[in-house]
Amino acid sequence: MNFASDNTAPVAPAILEAIASANEGYARGYGNDDWTAGVERRLSDIFEREVATFLVPTGTAANALALAQITPPWGVVFCHADAHIATDECGAPEFFGGGIKLVTLAGDAGKIAPATLQAALSGYGALSPHQMVASALSLTQASEAGTIYRTDEIAALCDVAKKRGLAVHMDGARFANALVRGNATPAQMTWQSGVDVLSFGATKGGALAAEAVVIFDPDRATFFAERRKRAGHLLSKHRFLAAQFAAYLEDGRWLALARHANIMADRLAVELKAVGLPPVWPVEANLLFVALPRALDAKLRAAGANYYVRANEGLTLPADRVLVRLVTSFATKEEEIERFVNLCKNF
Amino acid sequence: MNFASDNTAPVAPAILEAIASANEGYARGYGNDDWTAGVERRLSDIFEREVATFLVPTGTAANALALAQITPPWGVVFCHADAHIATDECGAPEFFGGGIKLVTLAGDAGKIAPATLQAALSGYGALSPHQMVASALSLTQASEAGTIYRTDEIAALCDVAKKRGLAVHMDGARFANALVRGNATPAQMTWQSGVDVLSFGATKGGALAAEAVVIFDPDRATFFAERRKRAGHLLSKHRFLAAQFAAYLEDGRWLALARHANIMADRLAVELKAVGLPPVWPVEANLLFVALPRALDAKLRAAGANYYVRANEGLTLPADRVLVRLVTSFATKEEEIERFVNLCKNF
Amino acid sequence: MNFASDNTAPVAPAILEAIASANEGYARGYGNDDWTAGVERRLSDIFEREVATFLVPTGTAANALALAQITPPWGVVFCHADAHIATDECGAPEFFGGGIKLVTLAGDAGKIAPATLQAALSGYGALSPHQMVASALSLTQASEAGTIYRTDEIAALCDVAKKRGLAVHMDGARFANALVRGNATPAQMTWQSGVDVLSFGATKGGALAAEAVVIFDPDRATFFAERRKRAGHLLSKHRFLAAQFAAYLEDGRWLALARHANIMADRLAVELKAVGLPPVWPVEANLLFVALPRALDAKLRAAGANYYVRANEGLTLPADRVLVRLVTSFATKEEEIERFVNLCKNF
Amino acid sequence: MNFASDNTAPVAPAILEAIASANEGYARGYGNDDWTAGVERRLSDIFEREVATFLVPTGTAANALALAQITPPWGVVFCHADAHIATDECGAPEFFGGGIKLVTLAGDAGKIAPATLQAALSGYGALSPHQMVASALSLTQASEAGTIYRTDEIAALCDVAKKRGLAVHMDGARFANALVRGNATPAQMTWQSGVDVLSFGATKGGALAAEAVVIFDPDRATFFAERRKRAGHLLSKHRFLAAQFAAYLEDGRWLALARHANIMADRLAVELKAVGLPPVWPVEANLLFVALPRALDAKLRAAGANYYVRANEGLTLPADRVLVRLVTSFATKEEEIERFVNLCKNF
Repeated sequence: MNFASDNTAPVAPAILEAIASANEGYARGYGNDDWTAGVERRLSDIFEREVATFLVPTGTAANALALAQITPPWGVVFCHADAHIATDECGAPEFFGGGIKLVTLAGDAGKIAPATLQAALSGYGALSPHQMVASALSLTQASEAGTIYRTDEIAALCDVAKKRGLAVHMDGARFANALVRGNATPAQMTWQSGVDVLSFGATKGGALAAEAVVIFDPDRATFFAERRKRAGHLLSKHRFLAAQFAAYLEDGRWLALARHANIMADRLAVELKAVGLPPVWPVEANLLFVALPRALDAKLRAAGANYYVRANEGLTLPADRVLVRLVTSFATKEEEIERFVNLCKNF
Repeated sequence: MNFASDNTAPVAPAILEAIASANEGYARGYGNDDWTAGVERRLSDIFEREVATFLVPTGTAANALALAQITPPWGVVFCHADAHIATDECGAPEFFGGGIKLVTLAGDAGKIAPATLQAALSGYGALSPHQMVASALSLTQASEAGTIYRTDEIAALCDVAKKRGLAVHMDGARFANALVRGNATPAQMTWQSGVDVLSFGATKGGALAAEAVVIFDPDRATFFAERRKRAGHLLSKHRFLAAQFAAYLEDGRWLALARHANIMADRLAVELKAVGLPPVWPVEANLLFVALPRALDAKLRAAGANYYVRANEGLTLPADRVLVRLVTSFATKEEEIERFVNLCKNF
Repeated sequence: MNFASDNTAPVAPAILEAIASANEGYARGYGNDDWTAGVERRLSDIFEREVATFLVPTGTAANALALAQITPPWGVVFCHADAHIATDECGAPEFFGGGIKLVTLAGDAGKIAPATLQAALSGYGALSPHQMVASALSLTQASEAGTIYRTDEIAALCDVAKKRGLAVHMDGARFANALVRGNATPAQMTWQSGVDVLSFGATKGGALAAEAVVIFDPDRATFFAERRKRAGHLLSKHRFLAAQFAAYLEDGRWLALARHANIMADRLAVELKAVGLPPVWPVEANLLFVALPRALDAKLRAAGANYYVRANEGLTLPADRVLVRLVTSFATKEEEIERFVNLCKNF
Repeated sequence: MNFASDNTAPVAPAILEAIASANEGYARGYGNDDWTAGVERRLSDIFEREVATFLVPTGTAANALALAQITPPWGVVFCHADAHIATDECGAPEFFGGGIKLVTLAGDAGKIAPATLQAALSGYGALSPHQMVASALSLTQASEAGTIYRTDEIAALCDVAKKRGLAVHMDGARFANALVRGNATPAQMTWQSGVDVLSFGATKGGALAAEAVVIFDPDRATFFAERRKRAGHLLSKHRFLAAQFAAYLEDGRWLALARHANIMADRLAVELKAVGLPPVWPVEANLLFVALPRALDAKLRAAGANYYVRANEGLTLPADRVLVRLVTSFATKEEEIERFVNLCKNF
């Protein structure tokens, strides 16, 4: 019963096999190999346009490199208060960006409302050069609350952003999970709605360590290769990074893996709701939040369940409840869910 | 016939198997797993003292994080003119270090002489606060020329450095290759001779992507974890990074793999010398430099040989010769050498 | 009628004369002159302990250098939401600090309450190394709202900070204005209450361009000289910077200049209150905020009055009112106040 | 007898008077004043084109801001080995530039030869993204050796630079001294020869603390205002900075002050040569280098002479000689020179 994070899961077998298959003979290093070229072509196909792609081993690297690419050091990046870039990357965006500032915005269920962004932007612009410059918007898709932005929501946010000259980044550590839920193509969910650069995650979805920075307008990718190298994120035996991504994208595997994770989250939500523990936010990806009675929390942990408690910002919980996050993955088994729910049932 | 780099090689089979073996069930992320704890203990054993260890996916990350840890932003790091940190990391040390300066020193066969360091240091110290501060020495072991520093040479350099308050870093991307050649223990070749922090490479030696920063005095490791995280170099599925290192270190595999690479380099050197193409520097690790007739170079390439031409700094070559670097690895086969030498023979 | 800022004022005559007096013959550059040594001694006297002093030409430089000195790049600095460092320095702390993060706290009348700091700190500490590290507290004295922290308030805040290992910075751009209002010595208002480093402003108080970074424990000043130089803030003809500060501190001039500014603010407050325009926050230094009817605002501006409108964060104003900030200085004349108030009276 | 530096001199009386004259009434801060607008217009006149001008208090700030504006963080700046930016600014370019690298070039008499630049550039370009990117050339005019680049020499260097896409910076801390020697207009010596940005110094020439960054193509000045502010180099009482520059430029005063300094240097050179102490490099600005017998050096110092000893890089001196630098300024008096030379004469 491990619902701690999608990165406590192992590597999806097909991806591990792809690594093994790539382990034949010599290959040019640093991305000058056939696997990498293949992934680049594949991503252009998936996004229905020529894109510039850069593979890196971690989501923090993907996010921080992407933000640094679209924001000057005196730039402000707007993001949700619970965004991973703001809470869990130990200042990577600030470091890579040469001292940028993240301005965090409140928002129900992990999402920013266009009006909130608009209001925040109203405070920027007149104080040049005393004030930092509003430069970018970062959206997390799926959000940290397990919800997703619909295509029209993304477009509305990008519209507000673009009118003020902001670039738009999407943190897609769980992009596949969002995509299989929404009724949209990868292109519609990103550049066709106004997104400029995507951190396209594969690690949480089943890879060993593989993320892609996808820059939709290749002209905006100038010197990204130097930026990545200088951050130590250009792998020498790059074929093994590319092989992971190739296997992830092959034959819709990325969507199948995400679909399983989402279905597991849905089932968990439905069954927990049935026993009086409804999720506090809509369950739209592979994670859900529940207000557990503290005694049940103790019982579950004693039985070996693994998950994180989260600060209940914004939510008012009874004193005897604790907000917990439950994350499913491609590896989640139905038995885990049954066992977890049964423990809740008999409480 | 691939002698381009030790990172064109694949992953050593035992290391790939270790990754597969680790792919069972859930594991805590970010280094809180058993594989990581095991590697930490193992490295303390190997170095005969408690050390602080941090695993990262690339050598550039290891070097840049290590240097940033021991050097303030206004610090000068002395290194050989051909050091990887100075020539091939696109400014990673400068970026991670917040604007440090690398001062490069000349030196025969890729090595710095103590007197050269002493002379360079004589120019530092009196101009505070106008001048940057002499802060660290970085030694490459084995060197970019394929030579190694003997223990007494390291001690002599560290002695000069320590008298001026410099910290000492060793770029050990090919540490194993140096070690199996030198008559010294890992401890003797590092902290017992004055080295403070080691970039201990496994990737070139046979791993997929695994390097360790080993800080010999754990008290000097303060905030290194934050530094790594903030650089995007803390892998979420960390067990797979640790599993590589564990397999690399298991039962002396790292030394066996390096020994093979060195033996292949030795053989190549001996046989090339026999056909009138002696190495220009002593062959002490797994790479050698040869001044090839241009026509032979063309012939070898036409036959499929892969290697890099290098600028012949310091060396005077006849106009019809070109300096080439030949690198062997754990994966180099005797047949490759035979074929390469035969092509030279019949020239 | 210029109430726009204390830096629209000229230079206090005695300070300008001191610059002229220093303009005799040669003097060693970069702070190795007698004026500088004198200021250093004088500040140690004023603060009743040996302090380390560094003069710089701007308050932004003083603040950013001070914060960078006490905060690692992965550090979080807590400050009031209206703090100059957060709103008006275009990211200088983030730049000098190598990517630090300012976390802004709400607080009535420009001041942080200890409980607010405590609550903010409760969110830090458990997520290492994913979260940035709570590192420093910055207090603005006098505050941007024109209020001051009493000695016991500073001590209470520092107590919360110190228990969590935070260093404390005081932005004293208007330190003199605070001091002449509070019933405390310079020592009591700073290090004796727990402050580690002070940006001691003279520019707003009457200098041309002169601020001092005062580090109360000289052991914490290591490499500050290099930090200042490398930021371009070590003046070559340093005697003229020191001469300003010497004149500012001579015979209590700094306090006399501040007292005049405060008295002018008090008078403005009393007289505006008498005509129905009370200040929205206590007037404790040399600035006050008033909710002006928009028509009166227009009338005043038409008559030549100069001041800034401020966003009314936290305050609820009628739609026909606008929040304005009125700043007095050593140069403010009673006639200006009379004229301004008369315009309000006859409204 | 102070020949230590042109910044041991006081402020030129007319410049001090201009500061005093500006000390009337209120003025808008941060450069929104009439003095500043006037200086901006004046500089456009002097350079015969519309330029973007930014005033700062130090030469280090001017240089570092200028370089950061034209060089990305992964950029290499080529400069002479003795350039102030490389030896005396404690890493300011590296800090402001986010980790750029200065590559220093040898060159007789403080000057870079086009062939030397060409040779250095030949090592750049092929190793992307492993190598830092050749980005800028910085020329020091007058050089640290007291020589000057003629217009055709500048054009030749800029030609080499421009063909490789490098921007060109000129460190003109002693720009006036170079200009009054060369037979060229300010425009010819800068942008008409290919210079993109100039650090135009006034401090060494007679100001208190005033330097201008002159960007010849205003389109390249985007965000420079934010860059300056964020570095703490936007003075609040900016009129006093502008007033210095205005007085410096008024009626050719800058050229007259520089001419005096140069004449004093010429006289010193001629008279020292007459007593057997010829300058080691051509004397073309306001500084000269002489190889003094050590005993004479001691005698001069005992008599109160002030100057710096310099490392004799490149020069071979007899063991009993020491290389000293003698700097004159607008304030140098003939008597000082006579006294100095007499001490040498009677040696």
